[in-house]
Amino acid sequence: MTLRIGVAGYGYWGPNLVRNFAATPGIDVVGVADLREAAREKVKATYPAIATFEDPSELMKLPDVDAVVIATPVATHHQLAALALDHGKHVLVEKPIARTSAEAEDLVARAKKADRVLMVDHTFLFTGAVQSIAKIARSGDLGRICYFDSMRVNLGLFQPDVNCLWDLAPHDLSIIDYLVDDEIVDLEVSGYCHVDPKRPDMVFLTLHLANNAVAHFNMSWMSPVKVRRFTIGGTSKMLIWDDLDQDQKIKIYDHGIDFQPEDQRSAIIPEYRIGDIYSPRVSRTEALAGVAGHFAGVIAGKETSKMDGEKGLKVVRILELADERLKTSLASLEKQRKAQTGGV
Amino acid sequence: MTLRIGVAGYGYWGPNLVRNFAATPGIDVVGVADLREAAREKVKATYPAIATFEDPSELMKLPDVDAVVIATPVATHHQLAALALDHGKHVLVEKPIARTSAEAEDLVARAKKADRVLMVDHTFLFTGAVQSIAKIARSGDLGRICYFDSMRVNLGLFQPDVNCLWDLAPHDLSIIDYLVDDEIVDLEVSGYCHVDPKRPDMVFLTLHLANNAVAHFNMSWMSPVKVRRFTIGGTSKMLIWDDLDQDQKIKIYDHGIDFQPEDQRSAIIPEYRIGDIYSPRVSRTEALAGVAGHFAGVIAGKETSKMDGEKGLKVVRILELADERLKTSLASLEKQRKAQTGGV
Amino acid sequence: MTLRIGVAGYGYWGPNLVRNFAATPGIDVVGVADLREAAREKVKATYPAIATFEDPSELMKLPDVDAVVIATPVATHHQLAALALDHGKHVLVEKPIARTSAEAEDLVARAKKADRVLMVDHTFLFTGAVQSIAKIARSGDLGRICYFDSMRVNLGLFQPDVNCLWDLAPHDLSIIDYLVDDEIVDLEVSGYCHVDPKRPDMVFLTLHLANNAVAHFNMSWMSPVKVRRFTIGGTSKMLIWDDLDQDQKIKIYDHGIDFQPEDQRSAIIPEYRIGDIYSPRVSRTEALAGVAGHFAGVIAGKETSKMDGEKGLKVVRILELADERLKTSLASLEKQRKAQTGGV
Amino acid sequence: MTLRIGVAGYGYWGPNLVRNFAATPGIDVVGVADLREAAREKVKATYPAIATFEDPSELMKLPDVDAVVIATPVATHHQLAALALDHGKHVLVEKPIARTSAEAEDLVARAKKADRVLMVDHTFLFTGAVQSIAKIARSGDLGRICYFDSMRVNLGLFQPDVNCLWDLAPHDLSIIDYLVDDEIVDLEVSGYCHVDPKRPDMVFLTLHLANNAVAHFNMSWMSPVKVRRFTIGGTSKMLIWDDLDQDQKIKIYDHGIDFQPEDQRSAIIPEYRIGDIYSPRVSRTEALAGVAGHFAGVIAGKETSKMDGEKGLKVVRILELADERLKTSLASLEKQRKAQTGGV
Repeated sequence: MTLRIGVAGYGYWGPNLVRNFAATPGIDVVGVADLREAAREKVKATYPAIATFEDPSELMKLPDVDAVVIATPVATHHQLAALALDHGKHVLVEKPIARTSAEAEDLVARAKKADRVLMVDHTFLFTGAVQSIAKIARSGDLGRICYFDSMRVNLGLFQPDVNCLWDLAPHDLSIIDYLVDDEIVDLEVSGYCHVDPKRPDMVFLTLHLANNAVAHFNMSWMSPVKVRRFTIGGTSKMLIWDDLDQDQKIKIYDHGIDFQPEDQRSAIIPEYRIGDIYSPRVSRTEALAGVAGHFAGVIAGKETSKMDGEKGLKVVRILELADERLKTSLASLEKQRKAQTGGV
Repeated sequence: MTLRIGVAGYGYWGPNLVRNFAATPGIDVVGVADLREAAREKVKATYPAIATFEDPSELMKLPDVDAVVIATPVATHHQLAALALDHGKHVLVEKPIARTSAEAEDLVARAKKADRVLMVDHTFLFTGAVQSIAKIARSGDLGRICYFDSMRVNLGLFQPDVNCLWDLAPHDLSIIDYLVDDEIVDLEVSGYCHVDPKRPDMVFLTLHLANNAVAHFNMSWMSPVKVRRFTIGGTSKMLIWDDLDQDQKIKIYDHGIDFQPEDQRSAIIPEYRIGDIYSPRVSRTEALAGVAGHFAGVIAGKETSKMDGEKGLKVVRILELADERLKTSLASLEKQRKAQTGGV
Repeated sequence: MTLRIGVAGYGYWGPNLVRNFAATPGIDVVGVADLREAAREKVKATYPAIATFEDPSELMKLPDVDAVVIATPVATHHQLAALALDHGKHVLVEKPIARTSAEAEDLVARAKKADRVLMVDHTFLFTGAVQSIAKIARSGDLGRICYFDSMRVNLGLFQPDVNCLWDLAPHDLSIIDYLVDDEIVDLEVSGYCHVDPKRPDMVFLTLHLANNAVAHFNMSWMSPVKVRRFTIGGTSKMLIWDDLDQDQKIKIYDHGIDFQPEDQRSAIIPEYRIGDIYSPRVSRTEALAGVAGHFAGVIAGKETSKMDGEKGLKVVRILELADERLKTSLASLEKQRKAQTGGV
Repeated sequence: MTLRIGVAGYGYWGPNLVRNFAATPGIDVVGVADLREAAREKVKATYPAIATFEDPSELMKLPDVDAVVIATPVATHHQLAALALDHGKHVLVEKPIARTSAEAEDLVARAKKADRVLMVDHTFLFTGAVQSIAKIARSGDLGRICYFDSMRVNLGLFQPDVNCLWDLAPHDLSIIDYLVDDEIVDLEVSGYCHVDPKRPDMVFLTLHLANNAVAHFNMSWMSPVKVRRFTIGGTSKMLIWDDLDQDQKIKIYDHGIDFQPEDQRSAIIPEYRIGDIYSPRVSRTEALAGVAGHFAGVIAGKETSKMDGEKGLKVVRILELADERLKTSLASLEKQRKAQTGGV
């Protein structure tokens, strides 16, 4: 049986969604909604068979639509996803799933009540790189994971409704959750607003995970060069994922951290094993094709969701807490500057 | 007139100091002190003309010694430097100048009272790279400096008396102070102890400078690869110093951040100029030779000190405050973990 | 007035040609010919308005076609281009223009007789990189060009009708001709057949140019990694173009070769200046769009052809001579191996 | 029993030889000869216990010298090595072993007659990189070796008595001989003289090995950047050795060339396997220490020579033939230029 999909939002990401869903066997894209006439014209030119709508709510009401993909600005995610769920549609929402944890919780509750699939598009989980890393991490080859260190910087486009934290952190947060599925004990955050005093464009976030691991994120829209570098330190091996390295996206270093027994801590000498480097081939398949297939598979009851509403909620909770603390920190800093209290 | 130098400590750095001072015209190394007989034997084998001492205080009392270089463990810096100053010697101390700001202040006071030169060996300031960067930054070519972002990670040797912060941060702190000489309004720090629970081996530090700039440091002894990457963001251009790049240590990107007028902030669009890259030739002279010459020049009254006791004190003040906050943060975290309060 | 184009051949390169010509203002693609039904179906699906033909000669006879683009296998270039010219069409042929210099000469003669534009698609000339390099070379900034050194290797696809020389050399030959437009005094070639004993898959070619410059090409279908590295040595500066470097495609080294006066040659010491590196921004425009515009511009009489039939003939002459010598060399080698004459 | 060594020549390489031999247990350096007083003074300052001589022949006559290391200009190798052998000394000569194959043959004969060890210092064989590569190649992991491709270019120092071929080719020739120990069926060479018309500074050499492999060398003193890149193509895997890559000197690519059966050659499709990359740890021991130990081990009869006089002769034979053909080629080229025969 064919799955009939409607897509709300045909801006930056929408065309990629439509293209990938349309190319997936067993899926038909039957309608696309966008407020802008130009966007709708583009749909018609490329896909004459797809119906277009100005009002996304019309899409939710179509009886021949089984599922809706929401790729509109974040501020509208909750309203549109809620409407779709209430009309009995399955829903895939772009990341982040909502603006607040309250909104996200509400969506999770509605999906449960309606017994529909609610999924958040954490696309990175379906890249060849993250698939390889997950396989390696789960094989135990790295030993116990001790830390994550991510640098995700570039000359960013300023977006109308998010800051650098909400723009860049969801990727790393969903990846780490996918790899270790651990609780966050606490977090520390600092940042800076270079351009718009209300919108941080450099953010540094440290997460402390329950299982004695730490994660640090350097996120910026202000770097002269693009860096996508993600390091995982394990007790047996360490791994670096450089997403811009065409030849060796993933390198596994045969270096680990050997710990001395607890009672010899006074004279601690870590044993580093400096060994070989291994670089597995990484599949180049388009991640979004995997997302489309997974969404269909979960709806059909053949796959377990890797990125359900709960996962999306967990990410939003961390973003929300970090954002709140970041605002407090920036406000306190401004006060200190005004008070001209001098140096430390 | 020849400057007669005594060197206290002939461990890791001492031989480099002796070699460079001995090779500087106008300087004689007349004595070296080290508690270990093996170290003294090494001095004798390489430099038969240099007298050796077990007790460093003997060095301070020699009438024919004009200046003392102190390259002993940090815990002994204050005692030895104070003794030398009190005996009327000029003093060059390895970084950090002392364990605490109180100790550092005391040294600054003693040097003033004795009217002697007190200098801290922030060697990096005399590297070809930092000299080039300072020249570029002072030329105004970068515009106003908005941020520093430093990654200084490797598989580190655990040292007996310092943690990763005291080991790695002095370099970047002295470099930034050299480049902008600004006050620190506030700082934020987080970190982690993977090996020794009393000694952080990954530290993330954010400094807020008075003149609206921010500096972030990622420091680690736990990285599978060595990274020495220092980015400066300016309103006109940005600069990346990769100290491990043999061909292009410094790259200047013709990208800057153009700010819109204050009243148009609501619709802010930063103007990025994506332009050419320029990579100046960096001198390969050994930095320590510059330090030796500078120390002699300042003693002779021919040069103004670039790294006097006050500079060393400023660095120690920041290290002290960051270390204190880091300890508080780690203690609070441990409490939270024990309380098992669950996730955020 | 709109230029009406027909395209013969819709295999690997044809779709790129059609897309770029169709997107160029003032150009209409009116017909596409391909022997394979599947290819014609693809045209119809993507461009319903374009007529399709099985027999390419039909395309040449269409009265409403002004110009024909030929992207068929090399063996058919001469026949199809001759037909098109004889029917009064302007012609753009994929590189190499023909299988032999006799064929190429015949096309040049027919184009002259028919007073039509004959152009060969040396696409690389319209890349941002080659445009930048040409500008730099012509500015005199490099001084006199002394050498070219090109490495163009990868794991290549074996093609049905060409060897590695005919596949890869046209790029470098056309680029060098574009940069210096010099005569070839002599050439030396060697190579090897690893897979098909009749088709060299590694070829090393050295050209001696009239103006005392040398060019060396390392071409291979057998390399585990792709390399596209082109070095130009000048008396004032040297330049490296690494086409796979996303950040710095072109680097200009402030190193040159200073020659001593002729009469001091006995004690020759070249003066190397080791200086700065400069990396200009390279335009990312698609090269084929430039080709389409240029073809139209030349037909309209507004531009002088940068890659006319004569240029294509010059490249084929070199390929032909090199191929002939390569075959002789390989045959002689085989004889030597069979004679088992032992080592040198 | 201690091996007593004399060293003739204390220029560029001599100090490294003395330092490494002096540091090898069981070896004493008893004398050093150099025509230049300054060089002898340097010896005395660093090694007061070593006797110095102006005339190297005095060294050969010392009864308490067991073996002589010859690090003088190439033109003197034969005379000095012959003298040493005739006085019953073992001899280690810097590469190349002599100026001509006749000279080298004579040395081999004298060593045989005198029953002394004659060794040529092909230092590269004792680098961690070549040791690793040899181990991999001999394990059969690469399959049958099909080609070598070496790029060894830099801004070279012009040397008084050699050209670029004699300077750079011995490294690659000795490495390839070490890896496959194959005969050379034929060779092709081309090159260019940019600075001194009698001394090629860019040379391109192709060797055809008996066992159906090919080797290509791109050697130059004229490159703006230093490249040391050596590729080995095998039927199972390929290997790249980049000697300037600090992190991954050796990469093994899981790509090989699968050949089709002979009778299907008409429709040949090579099967490329694009797989993982593996980068073994390379030992950082100083190669010259290995050479010193090996020389002593061979003299003591405990090791079989990896680089005896025959190996040195084999390299010189290839250099001699290549140089002769290069001269012919350059002379013919000059004639053609003078005749102004125009282009090809």
